[in-house]
Amino acid sequence: MTPSVALIAPGAMGAAIARRLTDHGVEVLTSLTGRSERSVERAHQAGMRDATLSELMRADLLLSVVPPAEAEALALQLAPLLAGSERPPTYCDLNAISTVTLARVERVVRDSGATFVDGGIIGPPPSETQMPRIYVAGERASALARLNDHGLDVRVLEGEIGSASALKMCFAGINKGMTALTTIMLLAAGRSGAGEALRGELERSLPEVITRIDRGVPAMLPKAWRWHPEMREIADFLDAAAPGGTDAAGRSVFEGFAALYERLGDEEADGEIRRVLAELIDDRRT
Amino acid sequence: MTPSVALIAPGAMGAAIARRLTDHGVEVLTSLTGRSERSVERAHQAGMRDATLSELMRADLLLSVVPPAEAEALALQLAPLLAGSERPPTYCDLNAISTVTLARVERVVRDSGATFVDGGIIGPPPSETQMPRIYVAGERASALARLNDHGLDVRVLEGEIGSASALKMCFAGINKGMTALTTIMLLAAGRSGAGEALRGELERSLPEVITRIDRGVPAMLPKAWRWHPEMREIADFLDAAAPGGTDAAGRSVFEGFAALYERLGDEEADGEIRRVLAELIDDRRT
Repeated sequence: MTPSVALIAPGAMGAAIARRLTDHGVEVLTSLTGRSERSVERAHQAGMRDATLSELMRADLLLSVVPPAEAEALALQLAPLLAGSERPPTYCDLNAISTVTLARVERVVRDSGATFVDGGIIGPPPSETQMPRIYVAGERASALARLNDHGLDVRVLEGEIGSASALKMCFAGINKGMTALTTIMLLAAGRSGAGEALRGELERSLPEVITRIDRGVPAMLPKAWRWHPEMREIADFLDAAAPGGTDAAGRSVFEGFAALYERLGDEEADGEIRRVLAELIDDRRT
Repeated sequence: MTPSVALIAPGAMGAAIARRLTDHGVEVLTSLTGRSERSVERAHQAGMRDATLSELMRADLLLSVVPPAEAEALALQLAPLLAGSERPPTYCDLNAISTVTLARVERVVRDSGATFVDGGIIGPPPSETQMPRIYVAGERASALARLNDHGLDVRVLEGEIGSASALKMCFAGINKGMTALTTIMLLAAGRSGAGEALRGELERSLPEVITRIDRGVPAMLPKAWRWHPEMREIADFLDAAAPGGTDAAGRSVFEGFAALYERLGDEEADGEIRRVLAELIDDRRT
């Protein structure tokens, strides 16, 4: 039987996942109360149906797709409704959060009586050419895998709850961390008159890095505000994963990346950074 | 006319450069006083001739190829000899040092009356299959470019003194920084049971990263002790390159990388890190 899905909240990733599901015959409910005009428009275009929070409690699956900083608040907001529901939906947290934050979300959801699944999305929003992998973990992860019959690419991990979020943190740490690292060095090269020479040397000896810079940096700039808290989640995750509960090296690295993305995400910040980058990025190649 | 070269000190990179020069008809002098048996052996195999420090002062070019932490000490040690020489050699600092350290070395050398050239080596030591680029900068950089007639690949940068070291810092920051970053995330993945899943996802969506891990991490481990101070030079360089003299984000990142390499460079450190890495690295692919 086709599962019904409640999806919170319809940002770019959430709406694209919803579109994919509605195209494959799944009813996708969301709550548009208090959402921006743009979100409402996006939800409608994705074929989602506006519903009250109580109505969402009658879905089979509830997908949380929100910015990292909102993942726990959402669980706390929904907990009383989950607790009051006769048959609450399986709550799947698909957010880019550390295993520390995840454990807090899991606790809130389990205490409400609902079933919990750990998840993480890797890749860009679904489109005609691309499909992200939705990794899931936990006893009830197979509930999410039912969506493989409805247009998604859901992969069940063998590990316990936490391994999907750990995978997401590690992948994002490499991918978004490399973009941060190349941005830092490109800026320094440009500021010290070695920008063109650096590009030349990279083209010669690390051509894949030039591809990453030319594609990745311009694509990152408008998302930096969102990547900033994700870097902090990764720092927390690294501490949690390390023996003894601290990874001083990893924390220092990701606090640096967070600071960079925070600065780049501030549109009001002085234009020097953007000017130096613009001079050194060949965005005709993207 | 073939220039005579004094080269200090014959480590792996220095000896390979010397070998290349002696194979191309250049006399390469070095001082072996107080050097280890291994260094002496390496110098002889490279065709270098042992000489007193005073004899080195009669060479046309003096190449400093030492670990970053020794670059300034070497200049201070040689300064009185340079000052006492009628025609001191052109002093070329080829070390991986920040523009801050470089400025101190330059001051010492210039105060001695010798001519100074800024340089940076990018790539592995010369071999039958590979040749590093030796970037040089400064008024007298062309003096080094004469070695292009004797088997080396020397490239003169347009910028002022400092731009060769800046280029080296930026390139090393990207290359050795990416290896540090992937090592941090691979460790965290392995520790949280997501190691195999991470490799699978990287193979799918970022195959060049798997290549970097499988080649780069095993090759890095025996060099981590040497990369550790280089990361600190890069942190200093980033501060110097930034407007206002501080790059808090960059410094945090490279202090993290330095801490990682310091730990990996300590052979006595607990084996947990090496165990986790060994399980996840496919070194049959290297």
